[in-house]
Amino acid sequence: MKMFKEKIELKSKGSIPTYIDITKEVRKAIEDSEVENGIVTVVSPHTTCAVFYEEYAHDENEEGVESLQQDLNNALEKIIPYHTSADTFIYPGDEHYQAVESWPNADEYLPNGDRSALWNGDAHLKATIIGSSETFDVEKWNLGVGSTGYIYFVDFDTTRSRTRKCSITVIGE
Amino acid sequence: MKMFKEKIELKSKGSIPTYIDITKEVRKAIEDSEVENGIVTVVSPHTTCAVFYEEYAHDENEEGVESLQQDLNNALEKIIPYHTSADTFIYPGDEHYQAVESWPNADEYLPNGDRSALWNGDAHLKATIIGSSETFDVEKWNLGVGSTGYIYFVDFDTTRSRTRKCSITVIGE
Amino acid sequence: MKMFKEKIELKSKGSIPTYIDITKEVRKAIEDSEVENGIVTVVSPHTTCAVFYEEYAHDENEEGVESLQQDLNNALEKIIPYHTSADTFIYPGDEHYQAVESWPNADEYLPNGDRSALWNGDAHLKATIIGSSETFDVEKWNLGVGSTGYIYFVDFDTTRSRTRKCSITVIGE
Repeated sequence: MKMFKEKIELKSKGSIPTYIDITKEVRKAIEDSEVENGIVTVVSPHTTCAVFYEEYAHDENEEGVESLQQDLNNALEKIIPYHTSADTFIYPGDEHYQAVESWPNADEYLPNGDRSALWNGDAHLKATIIGSSETFDVEKWNLGVGSTGYIYFVDFDTTRSRTRKCSITVIGE
Repeated sequence: MKMFKEKIELKSKGSIPTYIDITKEVRKAIEDSEVENGIVTVVSPHTTCAVFYEEYAHDENEEGVESLQQDLNNALEKIIPYHTSADTFIYPGDEHYQAVESWPNADEYLPNGDRSALWNGDAHLKATIIGSSETFDVEKWNLGVGSTGYIYFVDFDTTRSRTRKCSITVIGE
Repeated sequence: MKMFKEKIELKSKGSIPTYIDITKEVRKAIEDSEVENGIVTVVSPHTTCAVFYEEYAHDENEEGVESLQQDLNNALEKIIPYHTSADTFIYPGDEHYQAVESWPNADEYLPNGDRSALWNGDAHLKATIIGSSETFDVEKWNLGVGSTGYIYFVDFDTTRSRTRKCSITVIGE
């Protein structure tokens, strides 16, 4: 049994939910692991991001969002509206604003003290529903998926562009 | 540490979402693995299928769908309607139709060139929400769940009947 | 490669969905495992419970429910109403009631034969959507999450208070 770990960096757009195809990076980690059979686990350490498995849908809108991703945005929006005002969600409350304002790096989260920069409750809830990790099959030194399956990392946070991380761990023989 | 992998084949009904109890197969893989303590990961390699953990609900409708599965279908339908027309979802778009039409095995996906055979956007979105993998506990050579817990594989694709695969990987000592 | 497993016990409130921060327990298991790099998988063996990753939101209501948890309750309620009457869901049906009534420990599930004690269909469906397991990163002998990320166990069952279990398995080197 052996284990191989790779950490990748991704850039979110900030203005819209950012879907990123990371299948190539996962395949590369499996190759570098030299694992013949086992599993590969893909994990987001961010509470507004998620990992999921989906078909590549070919058609994209002018912002590069694939059709199934737009459809997913539309489906989730029916129960989780975009966080566009202070009363869209209960979160964030006064104590949260004050806690963040007390952090040494407060300006990173609240540029110019603008509290609306924390209006990402929608992203938190969507990420919880989709899930922060997914496990895939490793089979004969390859990712065990069909030809139409792809692994996506999504950052639902639309408050600003960020550098995100994602860890890929291959375990097997 | 050791690892044991089993791949099973399942048949979907095609006309309705197909829920299949695979608990017995997961228990068998644990037994064959001779792992005393560890984890077992169940993975679907199909983008319209998902794996989840649920109670066995005893009552079934005339099509063999358990009550909790009908309730899940009803809950998901509120945000993801069945894909019954070309404009239920943005997917599939022209480029996707054309891409599939160019595949060597196009006839498998588009029997008689009927584009409505690709109207499974509902299945893709539902599978993303439920998730393509789930991990369970292995405890004392057994599946670490209570007496009422079962593992289900679901194919949400209602366009046609298919043979599906599911991989079961046991890791532990 | 080594593996370490810890099982924790948790108490649900019973009257409302019970969210429990188990980050400290997961960190303790990683410490006890002496694993430097790997993964940690958190699994609920209960079909009305789930595991997820979320920010700690600071603000709580008078019942101790954090703002993001109230927002999640509200979002899920839009498609899965609380199970307050016999016809909220198809589940449980006659065969399920009768099966439970035949169990040796029936009184635990149906105190005084009150069938409304089984009205937890909402909890079953919510747990299916959030998922019974989540995997996290183990990095340099620590949980590989940012400073704002926490691991929550949730029991969506509001029929009565219970003692619940959750297993934490660390695998790595």
